[in-house]
Amino acid sequence: MRLPLLAAVCCALLACAARPHCAAAAKARHFKWEISNMFWSPDCEEKVVIGINGQFPGPTIRARAGDTIHVELKNALHTEGVVIHWHGIRQIGTPWADGTAAISQCAINPEETFTYRFVVDKPGTYFYHGHYGMQRAAGLYGSLIVDVAEGEEEPFKYDGELNLLLSDWYHESIHTQMVALSSKPFRWIGEPQSMLINGRGQFNCSMAAVHTPGATQCAAVNRQCAPVVLSVQPNKTYRLRVASTTSLASLNLAIGNHKLTVVEADGNYVDPFAVDDIDIYSGDSYSVLLTTDQDPSSNYWVSVGVRGRQPKTAPALAVLNYRPNRASKLPALAPPATPAWDDYEHSKAFTYRIRARAGTPPPPATADRRIELLNTQNRMDGHTRWSINNVSMVLPATPYLGSLKLGLKSTLTAARPAETFSRGYDVRQPPANPNTTAGDNVYVLAHNTTVDVVLQNANALAHNVSEVHPWHLHGHDFWVLGYGEGAYRGDAADEARLNLRDPPLRNTAVIFPYGWTALRFVADNPGVWAFHCHIEPHLHMGMGVVFAEAVDRVGKVPKEAVSCGATASALMNGDHL
Amino acid sequence: MRLPLLAAVCCALLACAARPHCAAAAKARHFKWEISNMFWSPDCEEKVVIGINGQFPGPTIRARAGDTIHVELKNALHTEGVVIHWHGIRQIGTPWADGTAAISQCAINPEETFTYRFVVDKPGTYFYHGHYGMQRAAGLYGSLIVDVAEGEEEPFKYDGELNLLLSDWYHESIHTQMVALSSKPFRWIGEPQSMLINGRGQFNCSMAAVHTPGATQCAAVNRQCAPVVLSVQPNKTYRLRVASTTSLASLNLAIGNHKLTVVEADGNYVDPFAVDDIDIYSGDSYSVLLTTDQDPSSNYWVSVGVRGRQPKTAPALAVLNYRPNRASKLPALAPPATPAWDDYEHSKAFTYRIRARAGTPPPPATADRRIELLNTQNRMDGHTRWSINNVSMVLPATPYLGSLKLGLKSTLTAARPAETFSRGYDVRQPPANPNTTAGDNVYVLAHNTTVDVVLQNANALAHNVSEVHPWHLHGHDFWVLGYGEGAYRGDAADEARLNLRDPPLRNTAVIFPYGWTALRFVADNPGVWAFHCHIEPHLHMGMGVVFAEAVDRVGKVPKEAVSCGATASALMNGDHL
Repeated sequence: MRLPLLAAVCCALLACAARPHCAAAAKARHFKWEISNMFWSPDCEEKVVIGINGQFPGPTIRARAGDTIHVELKNALHTEGVVIHWHGIRQIGTPWADGTAAISQCAINPEETFTYRFVVDKPGTYFYHGHYGMQRAAGLYGSLIVDVAEGEEEPFKYDGELNLLLSDWYHESIHTQMVALSSKPFRWIGEPQSMLINGRGQFNCSMAAVHTPGATQCAAVNRQCAPVVLSVQPNKTYRLRVASTTSLASLNLAIGNHKLTVVEADGNYVDPFAVDDIDIYSGDSYSVLLTTDQDPSSNYWVSVGVRGRQPKTAPALAVLNYRPNRASKLPALAPPATPAWDDYEHSKAFTYRIRARAGTPPPPATADRRIELLNTQNRMDGHTRWSINNVSMVLPATPYLGSLKLGLKSTLTAARPAETFSRGYDVRQPPANPNTTAGDNVYVLAHNTTVDVVLQNANALAHNVSEVHPWHLHGHDFWVLGYGEGAYRGDAADEARLNLRDPPLRNTAVIFPYGWTALRFVADNPGVWAFHCHIEPHLHMGMGVVFAEAVDRVGKVPKEAVSCGATASALMNGDHL
Repeated sequence: MRLPLLAAVCCALLACAARPHCAAAAKARHFKWEISNMFWSPDCEEKVVIGINGQFPGPTIRARAGDTIHVELKNALHTEGVVIHWHGIRQIGTPWADGTAAISQCAINPEETFTYRFVVDKPGTYFYHGHYGMQRAAGLYGSLIVDVAEGEEEPFKYDGELNLLLSDWYHESIHTQMVALSSKPFRWIGEPQSMLINGRGQFNCSMAAVHTPGATQCAAVNRQCAPVVLSVQPNKTYRLRVASTTSLASLNLAIGNHKLTVVEADGNYVDPFAVDDIDIYSGDSYSVLLTTDQDPSSNYWVSVGVRGRQPKTAPALAVLNYRPNRASKLPALAPPATPAWDDYEHSKAFTYRIRARAGTPPPPATADRRIELLNTQNRMDGHTRWSINNVSMVLPATPYLGSLKLGLKSTLTAARPAETFSRGYDVRQPPANPNTTAGDNVYVLAHNTTVDVVLQNANALAHNVSEVHPWHLHGHDFWVLGYGEGAYRGDAADEARLNLRDPPLRNTAVIFPYGWTALRFVADNPGVWAFHCHIEPHLHMGMGVVFAEAVDRVGKVPKEAVSCGATASALMNGDHL
């Protein structure tokens, strides 16, 4: 009896030695999930959502840095495959557990079970979500919160914690949405019907109607769409974790009369700064400290409104409930008005204030390679698409991780995608050539090289339209070196805009209308990693690239991760991973 | 250049020699299909349908007996697998091409292509449809018509041919329908919103409103839902091919003032008989001869109404257009009233008249085995299910054809399903034990044995409810030996009801409320064959069994048919099919 136990402990210690923040107390945490379609009323209108173990949103995973998460996931959907991406977890050494269909693994077929095993190496506020078709927009998401390793401490103090997972919600099924977006001519899906906080919202009525001329007061609602109540004690400090898994909407969060001190972004500590409200783009996560220093006889509204697009969706509301007030006590003040949707100066001011906390590793002083990615909206055979350097990403039947590892022929098109775009491209005008082609958009990265990426925004197909796009990188954090207006030229003026002193580490960065954003990361994590706009319809329309990073150094890929398509054929014919 | 051609011809001749109806002229017919979701207005309301090459219904396949059909099928659905079953084609020697997910093959993943190759060995009226989840009900179907081999003749004469593929249509998506049927508590999907003829119907209005008190005349409609026009010349004889791929509805077809002479059922000739109307259950196909001997100055309505369930769906109408009348000329007579939905005596009278045409092979005089299948509605963990001998069929992740061929352990549960049910079971009452369990319902059949199947209907969960169920067998035609009322006892009286002289050969047979139906077939086609109620929600709720027939004699299964689940794992680990 004693030997296996001893062996297990030894293994845990050995595995641990290689990881930062890993104490001997690191645990294996086991979860058993079943994913199925079910009826639910996220905004009081009953629809079909994708749930986990009968819950929407899915269960919160809570772990400590250094723990190993095991999620044994059964697909109980009827005819659809499924995968889960662990957003913000770098999957160091486990690229097959990143949960991107057609990139890191085969979609898990109905009735099949696949086990995700990975280490959460870094404390922070994360989440997980579907990464196949538009399944995230069907409600397939939940929170993943990693505390510091036992015996370690956060670099800030708080008395309690609150967690808000923000999302938006459409009444049309994702199937209909995908057909619309893929239709010829294109049909835009429009704005979401509701905003959700922790999976709950109220369609066509307001909890704060008394403050909102013309609004209808929500009647007694069912538990699935009851407003979220955040109960707090007066004169304490709370850590409010906020993450956005919206399909489309960029958000702003404010709490009546309360300041918010930003301390964490995407699982990295930032130099603390206080604001009245925070912007949150899809794919972002933050921790803010909130001190309950206001009149304790009142409750306060938490308001989540839309940014960057003319809002047709009412803000989501939650109640900050100062105990011992009743949760149902109506706040005396109206919900805080979030900034005007097109007040980009406000957004930029917030974004530019985010700097790394002292002690964050600085970026290498120079890069080995620069990849410039022009974001344009185009047409392809009558379809509307998003393109990167005029190529729109189309994912293959066989996941890249398997086919590249096996060196399968014809996995990639012969021509590698362009690393730059014409210096003459006028980002202020619709594309002179509106036609695009489909491609794999795979950039092959050499091990341990330092890569700069410049994301360049531009005008869409219609005149005077340039949208916000939050780009999310898998497998890495990157340093956000800087932002600029108009076309990036790479000249001395642009170089001068880069911050090499205290750029924040993040996994998601926004490009503002007509602007550019410069990122840097070190290709030190062998795998195949998606890098894409986190807006679900934009990704569906081709807005992404893939980084194939030192695939020869990837460890033994589990067969069950790539048991489909050309990799399954090759393995059945005797190839070895 | 000459050698390969010669080799191909030789091969064709060799392949041909083994098949009935096969002349040297047998052809390979190639089709390239892409399956995708698309917007369509089958009944003038726009919904998402599953289309083939942008068409709904899918393209008609037309071939001659002995031809080989090649369908290169690309799945362009976004996240759903797909298969196509060739309903009525026995797949002699090609059981992997039968197109039943989890039984004969793995569902084809998105972006994958799978080629179906099979011989249509027998002339007749067939169709094809999805056989995964409830995809048939999403519109994934089309006609498959096999003419006699070149130089051969049908045993009846006609001047022209008309084709009607009948279906029903729901406005709710199949995803929502599947969730409802799987919900706890159960939610019934209700009756279809429309009946379709060749994929076209009219919701909430009637083309014959002038004859129908209270009905709204359909306005000018778009082409996708325009009424079907069957143009004919006076004083000619037409072969009207009729097949039903309904999800739920049992149908009756009548044509104003015209007699119909039934000559074919399910790809087998029947002794001709004339009737005013025909019943068509889901899975049935017929050919009827129609002589245009009525007043040629008028057009006539073809009416398709609902049988066996209290109809809440208006009949579908088509126009029999006597040329040179304009197609738009309103028929003088009202649409023929189809019989009352619960006039089972009418249905039985029709069904019992179907006898084999002289020359049809007779059944073996005795059977080697009798399998009695009691059909009951039950509860399972709070879900409502259909069960066979009190076990509700649940399909596995890995198709039986592959796992049985490889002899994989734990493919089947240890206990084989029961071959009979208690003689004391009271079929007139709800089940005394309403609880059921899930199982594989796999019956293993020895090669060339003669198998009798007795399908026993019973009362559902509610009192005084017993529904019609059309059972469809894959891989075979069976002889329909007879029908009885109440519980089958297998005594002399029941034996006396069996027709061994001229029972019709069919692939689909109905059980009437509270009655039984006896079938016989010879297990001469190695493969794994579904046998199930053809009502889509009933199959989804477990109403089926599987016949694993001489699997050791199945030829080399193409790897791509079973490249999923446990078979993929075994093959990747070095097993051989």
